[in-house]
Order: sequence, then C-alpha cells, then structure tokens
Amino acid sequence: MKALVYTGALKKAWEERPKPRLVAPTDAIVRITRTTLCGTDLHILKGDLPSCEPGRILGHEGVGVVEDAGPGVTAFKAGDRVIISCVSACGQCTYCRRLMPSHCTTGGWILGNTIDGTQAEYVRIPHANGSLYAMPAGADEEAMVMLSDILPTGFECGVLNGRVQPGHTVAIVGAGPVGLAALLTVQLFSPAAIIVVDLDDHRLEVARSLGATSVVNSADGKAAATIQRATEGVGVDTAIEAVSVPATFELCQQIIGPGGTIANIGVHGTKVDLHLEKLWDRNIAITTRLVDATSTSLLFRTVRTGKLSPKRLISHRFPMAKILEAYDSFGDAAKTKSLKVILEA
Amino acid sequence: MKALVYTGALKKAWEERPKPRLVAPTDAIVRITRTTLCGTDLHILKGDLPSCEPGRILGHEGVGVVEDAGPGVTAFKAGDRVIISCVSACGQCTYCRRLMPSHCTTGGWILGNTIDGTQAEYVRIPHANGSLYAMPAGADEEAMVMLSDILPTGFECGVLNGRVQPGHTVAIVGAGPVGLAALLTVQLFSPAAIIVVDLDDHRLEVARSLGATSVVNSADGKAAATIQRATEGVGVDTAIEAVSVPATFELCQQIIGPGGTIANIGVHGTKVDLHLEKLWDRNIAITTRLVDATSTSLLFRTVRTGKLSPKRLISHRFPMAKILEAYDSFGDAAKTKSLKVILEA
Amino acid sequence: MKALVYTGALKKAWEERPKPRLVAPTDAIVRITRTTLCGTDLHILKGDLPSCEPGRILGHEGVGVVEDAGPGVTAFKAGDRVIISCVSACGQCTYCRRLMPSHCTTGGWILGNTIDGTQAEYVRIPHANGSLYAMPAGADEEAMVMLSDILPTGFECGVLNGRVQPGHTVAIVGAGPVGLAALLTVQLFSPAAIIVVDLDDHRLEVARSLGATSVVNSADGKAAATIQRATEGVGVDTAIEAVSVPATFELCQQIIGPGGTIANIGVHGTKVDLHLEKLWDRNIAITTRLVDATSTSLLFRTVRTGKLSPKRLISHRFPMAKILEAYDSFGDAAKTKSLKVILEA
Amino acid sequence: MKALVYTGALKKAWEERPKPRLVAPTDAIVRITRTTLCGTDLHILKGDLPSCEPGRILGHEGVGVVEDAGPGVTAFKAGDRVIISCVSACGQCTYCRRLMPSHCTTGGWILGNTIDGTQAEYVRIPHANGSLYAMPAGADEEAMVMLSDILPTGFECGVLNGRVQPGHTVAIVGAGPVGLAALLTVQLFSPAAIIVVDLDDHRLEVARSLGATSVVNSADGKAAATIQRATEGVGVDTAIEAVSVPATFELCQQIIGPGGTIANIGVHGTKVDLHLEKLWDRNIAITTRLVDATSTSLLFRTVRTGKLSPKRLISHRFPMAKILEAYDSFGDAAKTKSLKVILEA
Repeated sequence: MKALVYTGALKKAWEERPKPRLVAPTDAIVRITRTTLCGTDLHILKGDLPSCEPGRILGHEGVGVVEDAGPGVTAFKAGDRVIISCVSACGQCTYCRRLMPSHCTTGGWILGNTIDGTQAEYVRIPHANGSLYAMPAGADEEAMVMLSDILPTGFECGVLNGRVQPGHTVAIVGAGPVGLAALLTVQLFSPAAIIVVDLDDHRLEVARSLGATSVVNSADGKAAATIQRATEGVGVDTAIEAVSVPATFELCQQIIGPGGTIANIGVHGTKVDLHLEKLWDRNIAITTRLVDATSTSLLFRTVRTGKLSPKRLISHRFPMAKILEAYDSFGDAAKTKSLKVILEA
Repeated sequence: MKALVYTGALKKAWEERPKPRLVAPTDAIVRITRTTLCGTDLHILKGDLPSCEPGRILGHEGVGVVEDAGPGVTAFKAGDRVIISCVSACGQCTYCRRLMPSHCTTGGWILGNTIDGTQAEYVRIPHANGSLYAMPAGADEEAMVMLSDILPTGFECGVLNGRVQPGHTVAIVGAGPVGLAALLTVQLFSPAAIIVVDLDDHRLEVARSLGATSVVNSADGKAAATIQRATEGVGVDTAIEAVSVPATFELCQQIIGPGGTIANIGVHGTKVDLHLEKLWDRNIAITTRLVDATSTSLLFRTVRTGKLSPKRLISHRFPMAKILEAYDSFGDAAKTKSLKVILEA
Repeated sequence: MKALVYTGALKKAWEERPKPRLVAPTDAIVRITRTTLCGTDLHILKGDLPSCEPGRILGHEGVGVVEDAGPGVTAFKAGDRVIISCVSACGQCTYCRRLMPSHCTTGGWILGNTIDGTQAEYVRIPHANGSLYAMPAGADEEAMVMLSDILPTGFECGVLNGRVQPGHTVAIVGAGPVGLAALLTVQLFSPAAIIVVDLDDHRLEVARSLGATSVVNSADGKAAATIQRATEGVGVDTAIEAVSVPATFELCQQIIGPGGTIANIGVHGTKVDLHLEKLWDRNIAITTRLVDATSTSLLFRTVRTGKLSPKRLISHRFPMAKILEAYDSFGDAAKTKSLKVILEA
Repeated sequence: MKALVYTGALKKAWEERPKPRLVAPTDAIVRITRTTLCGTDLHILKGDLPSCEPGRILGHEGVGVVEDAGPGVTAFKAGDRVIISCVSACGQCTYCRRLMPSHCTTGGWILGNTIDGTQAEYVRIPHANGSLYAMPAGADEEAMVMLSDILPTGFECGVLNGRVQPGHTVAIVGAGPVGLAALLTVQLFSPAAIIVVDLDDHRLEVARSLGATSVVNSADGKAAATIQRATEGVGVDTAIEAVSVPATFELCQQIIGPGGTIANIGVHGTKVDLHLEKLWDRNIAITTRLVDATSTSLLFRTVRTGKLSPKRLISHRFPMAKILEAYDSFGDAAKTKSLKVILEA
C-alpha cells in the first residue's frame, strides 16, 4: 500500500509499504477513506518529537471502513464505517480507569507517533473496541474526521480544562485550526464574550465568522492592554493558549483575571517564564493536557444534531495521492490560508 | 495603646498608637487577647510587599473580645469572644459571591497590609459580620488563633487546590509553619502517602511526628530521584509548594505525576521557569491562591471535635510586650527551631 | 401607595397602603417600574403557603428605581435603576457562605411571603447590597424583570441541579413559564436533544419555537413510552420536573436513564411515590431547590450579550392599576394562553 | 467442583458442579481461596431478584489464584493472586467510559446473579483485565475480600454519593455490614460527627468501636427528634440509608438538613413515600447507586497503608464446606451477632 513516511528530520515520502496485519486479538485493520494533517505532524517533521522515529507512517486522524478485526474486537466487524480516535484506549489500565487514556499504559497517542498512523491506505488500530467510533450511515465523512483529534483537543484541553461556564469571558490566543476548534466548541457553554487573538488578519476574520465576539491582532504588542480595557481591567475568566510559544503564554498571564484559568492546548518546544511574583495571589490555575478523547461521543452527538459544524474548519481538499502537495499547502498557511486539509482516498 | 509598627524596610517598633475607632457601621473593634507572627510579616519587613506602607501596624491573625461594634454588625456584640479572619469579607461583591473573598473589592487581605492589623492591643475589623467567628466558651485560644490564617491557608491553597483525595500520594515541599499546616489538614482527606521535603532535619522530624509517612532532606540535590523511586516512577498526585522559591517550584515539576496538581501556597518574589516542554502532555494543573478563609467554619468544627490539633504547630510563647523578642526568635528559625509563636496580651 | 394585598384564602385586593420606610441600615426603598406575576402567587392565594399571612403585599419580582437607601447600603444610591432579586441575601450567614442564600437566616425568599412584596408602588428591600442588581442605562426593563426569579429558577433548580452537559438528552416536563425558562436556559449548555412534555398544545408550540427539539403531549398517557422509544430505550440524562404534581414526578421516574438526574423545580403540595424498588440500582439523583439567585449576574451577562432572550416568555402586558385583570388572565392560562404577564407602573 | 447453588425461592444446596472453563478470550478462571456472604445473597434466596434464576451459583465476592486466562487477558496470568470485583467491567462500552461499569453492557453486577458466582471452588471471571485486581504477596486475604464489594459499596453509594466533606455531620441509618462499611470509609473524609442509628444495641456498640461519634437506638420512635436536637435543629449534611425499608427512608427525610444529601445504598423491595411537600425547598439531593467498584484501587491503597482496617467487619469464619452453616449464622444475625462471615477454601 501507499503511505506517507517520516524519513528523518525535515524529510517525508509517499511510498510503498506493506499492508498492516492484525497483531493482537484486540486489533482492527481500517481502510482509510479520509484523513487530514495536524500541526503536530509538522512538529514531528521538524524533529521536535523524538518519540517518533524515522520510518514511521504519520497521521493520527481519519475515518474509514473496518477491513479485518481480531477475535477480541466485539464492538466492530469488517465492513463497519468508523471514526478513528487519535488516542488508543485499553479501557482497563490505571490511567484509562481515571478517564485519562492519553496516558494508557499500552495506548495513548501512539498512532503516527510510536506506531504507524493513518496517512496511508490502511492502518492497524490497537484496542479497537475503545479506539474506534461507529460512523452512522449518511454521516458526512469530512465532519466526522474532525472528531478524530481536533474537536476533542480544542474542547478537552481548551474548553473543559478552562472551566468555561455560561456568561464567562474567554480569550483564545491563536486562531490556527486548534484555536478555531476551541472557538467552535467553547460556544457549547455559551460564554458572554469570546475574544480571539492572532497575528493573521485572515484567521481573525475566519474567527469572527465562526463566533468570536471580538478579535485582536497582536502584532502591535498591545493585545494585553486592549483585552484589559475590554474587560474593564478585570481580565478574562479563561485564556486558551493555542499557539505554544513563550510570547503567547506570556500574554495569557497578562490577561487572566482573578480566579481564572489558563488552559494550554498545544505542544511546547521550550520552557516559559511563569510570573508567580505577580500571580501567586490571583487564585488562578494553569493546565496542560494531551487530549484524552473522552468527549468524542458527546461531541459526536452535538455534530449530529447540528449544534456544531466542524466542516467550517476545512479550507482545502486533496486526493490522498497528492498528500505531498497538501503538506506544502498546510505548511505555508500564511500564504495559502490553509486550515484543516482533507485528504480523500 | 501599644502596637507593632512597620517603620520602613527592615525596621519595626513596639510603640504607642491611638486606639482604633469605628469608621463604618459594619466595623467592630476587638481587644486582642492572643496573636501570632506569620512568614508574610517577615516578607513585609524585608520590603517585599509594596502594598504595605511604613507606619502600618502589622499582623493579620488573632483572637480577642469585641469591645465595640457598629450598628450594621448583627452577628456580634461587645463582650463576644471572637476569632479574627485574616480575610475581611463584605459578602456581597462579585468576588465574595464567587466564594473568593480574598479579592473582596472592599476587603480581602487588608489587615496588617493596607490597614492596621492585629499585633496591637486593639484592632478595627471591617465587615465584622463576615470577618469574625464566634469563639465558644472554653475554647483553647491558642488553637483558635491557628484558624485566623495558617490552617485555612494550608488547607485551601494546598489541600483543596491540590485536589487531594483518599488514597492519593502527596508531597509537601517545605516544612515551615504553612507546610506543616498543610500536613495537618491534608490528613482530613486520608492520602495513602505524605512525603515531606525540607532542608532542616529538625523540621522533618516534626513533620514525621505530625503525620508525614516519609521525609526527604533535599540538601543532597537528589530529592526528585528519591521521590520518583518511592512512587515507582509515577510521581505524586499532588505537590504542595510551601517554600516559594524557584528551586522548590522546580522540584515540584520534577515529581508531579500525570494528572497531578502543583498547588502553590506562598508569596513568590520572583518569576520561575515553567517546563512546558516537558509538562505540556502531562495533564497537570498548577494553582495559585491567596487564602479565602471560606473553610474556616469547617476547620473550626474539625478542631472542636479533635480531628485536628493545630496547637502542635506552636513552638514558642511570649507576652505581647516582648513581641520584638518573638520576632527575633521567629526570624532565626533554623537556630531557634521556631514554628508558630504565640503572643499573649 | 397602592398595593396588591393577599386578604385571606382566595382573596386579594388592590388597595391603599402606607409607603414603606427604611427599617435596617442595610435596607433600600425601591419605586417599582415593572413587576410580574408568578405561579407561586397563585399558590399563596389558594392558601397553600401558610408562611404568607393575610395582609401581605404579594410579589417577589420587579425592577425599579432606588428611592432611599440606609447608611449600610454601599452598592446603590437613590436614583439607581435596579433589578430586584426574589431572594434577599445577607452574604454573611452560614447559608450565604455556602452559596445557599435561599436559606439565609435573615433573608431568603421573604418578599411577598413573610414581608411585603413588589406588586406595589414601592417596596422595602432588606440586605440591599446583596439583593439588588444594577440595571444599566438602556436595558430593556421587560427582559430585566425575568432576572428577578424565573430565569434563575429555571436555570438553577432545573438546569444546574440537573447537571446538564453538552450533548445530553433532556426532558422538561411542564411548559408553563418556569418550564419554558428552563427550556431557554438549558440551551446555554447545548444539549443534543430537548424533549418538552405538556398537556397543552399551544404551550408545546411555544416550546418548539423556543428551542425544544421535540414535544410530547402527554394527554394520551403514552409519554413515557414515547420518550423511551425516542431515546432507544436508554432514557434521558436529565428530567426537569416543572409541574409539581404526583403524575409528572411519576413520569420523570419512568424516563430517567442510568446515571441521570431528576431536577425538581416547583412547589409541591403533597407527597409523591418514589419507586426505589426500580430505581435503587439506576445510579440516579433527585434534587429539590428553592432558587438561590446565585446565577443572576451570569444570566444578566448572557441576556446583555443576546445569548438569552427572556422577553419571549412574556405573553401579556397590563398597567399596574389593572393588576386584578392581570391576575384573571394569568389564572386562566389555558384559555388566555398566558405566560409571563408584565405590569407597568 | 463443589458450589453453593440457588435452587429456587428459599432453597440452596452445596453440590457438585462442573468446573468452569474459558468462554471468551478475555475470561479468566480463578480458584477461590476465600469468599464471603452478602445481604444481597439473602435477598436472592428470598426470591426478590428475578434476574437471578434457580440453578445459579451464588456469590460475588472473593479472592483467589488465577488458574487459567484467555489470550485477551494481558494483566494477569496463571498463578497470580487476585481480588475479584463484584462488578465486571469491559472498560469500553458507553457506561464504562462514563465510569459507571455497574451498567456495563456486557458486565456490571453479573457474578452470582446472571452468571455463576464465587461461592464455589472455581469461578469464571469475564473481562478479567478490568474485573480483577492484583493481590500483593503478603496481603491479608481476609482484608482483601472486603474490597470485592462491601468497602466500595459503602464508600461509593454512601460516602461519595453522600458528598461528605471534612467537618460535616453524617448520619448512617443501619449498622449492618454495609452500614458499618460506610462508617469505616466515611472517616476517610474526616466528618466532625458520625451518628449511627440501628435497632440492635450490639451493632450500635460495634459502630461506636469503629468510629461513630454517637449512636441512636431508634426502637423508641424518637430517633428523628434526637438527631434534630443533636444538630441544633439544623439536621445532618448527609444521611446514608443502609437498611432499605420505607421506615428508614422516612427517617432520613426527617433528619436531612438544607443542602444535604440522602445517599441510598441498598436494595429496595418496595416503593417509599417522598415528602416533596416538605422537601421541595430544602435544596437536597437523593441518590441511588449500584456500586461501580471504580474506587477499588484507591481503597486498596488505604487498606495497604493502614488507613482502613476492614477486617474489623468480620465476625465469623467457616471452612468453605460448611457454607450452609455459615448461611444459617449470617441469616440469624440478631442472635449470632454476625457481620461479615469469611469462608475459607
């Protein structure tokens, strides 16, 4: 089969690889019908994640059709249409029992990281019972792909960790795909104000169209002052950090109000300054999280009933065979205005 | 009356001051019968807290007898014996209604900070209804003084913010008075293991006698390794930071387990490094908090029924008139083995 | 002044009464500009609430202008436009500190119950700091009246107690004003399905227009079966009981799913059957609540930003002097299609 | 092998049955070394639980040694010593993912109910990965048996559902084994007062020795008045119902304070009266729960570290072959003073 293989720092190839086979009785083999690219894939390609070694097929998102399933797979059978979760969950280890399958002792985020992933014609899914979701007949596959990772990530790491409640004021720092996923899902809790911050006016325009009540271009270095003014000097209840660089984490600290939460979504490559000399008495929380994908069923229901329209995150579509072009487009988002990029088998 | 006055960086005096009078109808005047010293007072004396200006009477803990009460004080009358909370709470502003009176718009931690405090013969207590607690006849005044600040601080900032649950593994970094208050109150939630870390063997010995299941002297720089080994490489569920310097915050980051919480108790004077490059996927929370004293009634009940014995935090006693000696003893704790120091009127 | 006085079971009069005066320093006198009628007023008139004695001026909702304020009222002054909360909160008693001012030892729901209420030209508001809310210039008074009671009641007793989360399935049994208030506010949490049950097709039609995803007329005795079928035999996550008679509480028990919550909103006049022989192993919760009005600020923000449109609950408008007519209309809702009735001074 | 078989209402036999064999790849066969009797077994024998049909081997508690394990059992192998949970958990169905394995679609409480149980020489355990717990070398088997059901049941259904917090006042109605298990485990949260109610003075004496701060014999019909007096008319924060008959549920309603919780532990055979006409405005919750056994690991840690001593629940010991005698003793507890009865293979 064909697959997108990480071949060492800054390198990748669309090449022939053996079709995966069942290894454990709880495995399933899924034929991919649609997949997508994630900012984390770009991190891997830069060589930022040593857990992912050269030779690995990338990708941790996708929908498809079950091709084969081991005897321990009771929830799915060949022919079933499924959504693949980016997190593999055994359901029985100490972390799964704490609803934290991100740290499942034999799973977690392994697809396209420590085992071969979904940017391929076929993928092996461990712990299939706990790592696949039934995709109903007639479901829109493009919307369903957004349930693999980006919606649960925005919702769990940003919104739930951020303890957003109706009437709150929320800032989302970063209007890339995951920031926009937080923007879509934060509206499930009806905050009174959602301020989105970015350097790119196009993305801010998209944010406004997706529900931001105000937008701030931080290029002038005055974002903190603007947000403090907009909140009458109180600061925000929740700051969702969706960029993952020191400057944006700094901004979050400048705008967080007493009792608030800074919810960190992404992959940081370097340490940051934490201003405890200013924050020690502010009664705040700072959270980090690798997505657990424990909200997938719930988000599925909100998508199915039209409360969420995740297709609005999709900017480009390519046939799977043109995945290298898709990567080029996705990697040059400032120019291509790329958000989520769908690859169709 | 006599009072301990902060007279500028590194200076203080026990001097004559006018007896306080009622200002607002919700004020009470309390004659102090016992008070104590807090590490925060030392911070002020060093000039670390600019909110506290020279000329201020220090002190935010104490018990006493109501001498006078304004017409708006419905819960107390002259002659009532009371515990003074370090936090003044109006009960009606936006922060009080969020159970966060630490940020009360006309109160919060003001005693011995922005208004005159309790290290004096008399003190004026604003918002008396919400800032005093009835001290029952026969109550042990020394135990009751511990309810002014140190028990709620250890409990709220350390234990509650730390989300400790029965069966958890907790590390308390710092065995000074507030760390020991966290040690006493964390046992209300029955963790399975409580590891206390300090540089001072005497304090570790005290910690062991107060319920630590193991103690670690971090002088050798191996505390993180020791704790990782003791937790089979998992790390702790909660790390309570009770020292407030970069090195101890660093240690907390090294020992926190997936899904855990670093609960910061104290007053930091400088920024710290936050290792998001290691912690971004660990699903942790870091919290800060100025005590709200919302747990005072509950802690009072646990003290009254013998579940908590806060007098064990007391190491020295002085008559009020010898408060300068008491400060000397408290300020040289390594030598004097000072913990909480009681001043008796 | 003129006031609507309860003069004994089934009797009321619009009569001359002395204008109220400040009693405690924390009182305010408010000139009513708009008020409304509540189902609870009808209960009182039937003689169901012995706490409310003949001679009482009814009414616990309203907006107006502060006419006079005691020296302890720091948050408001004469001339301020205010929303009156149905719950008076001292902010400092044991219940207020537990965020349960419904049981405030010197407040709670007393207006139009144990002290004179708002269906009058003027009303005395105890604990004004904690019982009034600033009404901004330009605010729509009719929308603001809905914040006195009905929105917080639907939201706190129904939605918050019902632990509704995004993606959930909710049944609201009863489409009278308070059931519809629950319907409006439940949407702040984006449930996937909201099933509204009533006997009156007009009210069901209104429910559909206000956001119900399906409606069930229970006249045929098949509502339980219909809802079980609609939920594939699982039952609902939350059943909000907004009628308060044994039959509707029975229905809630028949449709509640494992792990679900039956949230009781209203005033019950008689005991009900609880089928523990069927429910003991269903992991459910049943809640009761007198509104605490602790969500008023938050709901205010959602109204101001357009997330909530409570004016849609208003069916009729009368001048205050025609309050007896308004009662006739409100009391005969089946015929008049009355929901909330506004009285304008 | 020998097994205790339910042979129809009021009948049981200790008889020869075929040794169980692996059916699914996730099954394990466990040789029982110790088991015990549960009040629920008596309910079954009375014919109260139609789900349990004649011919069934009873028993849902026990410890033993893994004899055989299917290829899908990755956490255990032959020879491992294990604790058997009364709840079988697949870890992957919708209820397991909500941490509610009591309603696992292919598990839940099935042992000794819908499939053969543990009062036998061998038992087949479905979903072994999620339904067994490693028993460490040197562990006290008698203490470990208490982790199968009675400790998690008292803790989850009584203490956790009852939302007990430090400083609270708790009433436990019923001092049978499960009430006493609630008594032991409630102390993990350090309530200020624990009042135990029963009709049997011996059991009340045991309760006092296990930590009750006061006991009430309800034979005189004055328990409600006594408890109201003891709580100064406020009522209790939590009432744990551990008898499951209408009279004790009635008592719980009479003693519950505003904002409190009635946590129902047991198996009810008939409906009860719920006095909503008195409770509608009391802001209470009433909960039911079939144990989920999600707290087993945590309780295990508290037992291992000596915070909990569950052996104190054991009153009698019999060899397994004398199980009929054990049932006689257990069934006549008033006379035999029987609590938990250990059966040793």
